[in-house]
Amino acid sequence: MINLFANLPEQLDAELVTTLLRQDRLRIERIVSQGHTAPAEGWYDQAEHEWVLVLQGGGTVEFEDGDRVQLGVGDHLNIPAHSRHRVVWTHPDKLTVWLAVFYPAEPA
Amino acid sequence: MINLFANLPEQLDAELVTTLLRQDRLRIERIVSQGHTAPAEGWYDQAEHEWVLVLQGGGTVEFEDGDRVQLGVGDHLNIPAHSRHRVVWTHPDKLTVWLAVFYPAEPA
Repeated sequence: MINLFANLPEQLDAELVTTLLRQDRLRIERIVSQGHTAPAEGWYDQAEHEWVLVLQGGGTVEFEDGDRVQLGVGDHLNIPAHSRHRVVWTHPDKLTVWLAVFYPAEPA
Repeated sequence: MINLFANLPEQLDAELVTTLLRQDRLRIERIVSQGHTAPAEGWYDQAEHEWVLVLQGGGTVEFEDGDRVQLGVGDHLNIPAHSRHRVVWTHPDKLTVWLAVFYPAEPA
């Protein structure tokens, strides 16, 4: 078991993704960002639903329709499959730690 | 969207369970404890898998085989379906906030 706040880098050149659980059709990841936006170009367009929670720092998610959601510590957001979105801001001076739960869009 | 750390009670007579997401066969809950053990008698014996993360405070989970796992902030644990377990300790003086992800034990 790794602690979600253990071994965090001091500086981060690229987003750091650590898979915490992968079982059946569920995947739980810790994602650490620092000033990163993602993806580099365009939008995420995912086959799975994603539920995301900010554990440290903060970030802003933008949807294709222009909606922007600012998330601070303890804020969470459900992103349906194929809901095109991107991370347009994360805190530049401190690490942002996201918990992301990916789950199937339809019953197996 | 409720913030996971918003509107926490100052004192807690019984565990407080808030469903954050329920979709298809996934359920995400915030569970707040203060000195509570659970269940009141016997063991949890769940049909679903459960992945749990401590967001605040701390607690100890005991399994039927005698194993005990102490969890502090950022620690997480996967509890397979029908793995009989109980919470034998949570901090008596401060609130413990758990994030619990329940997911199906077998493909649908």
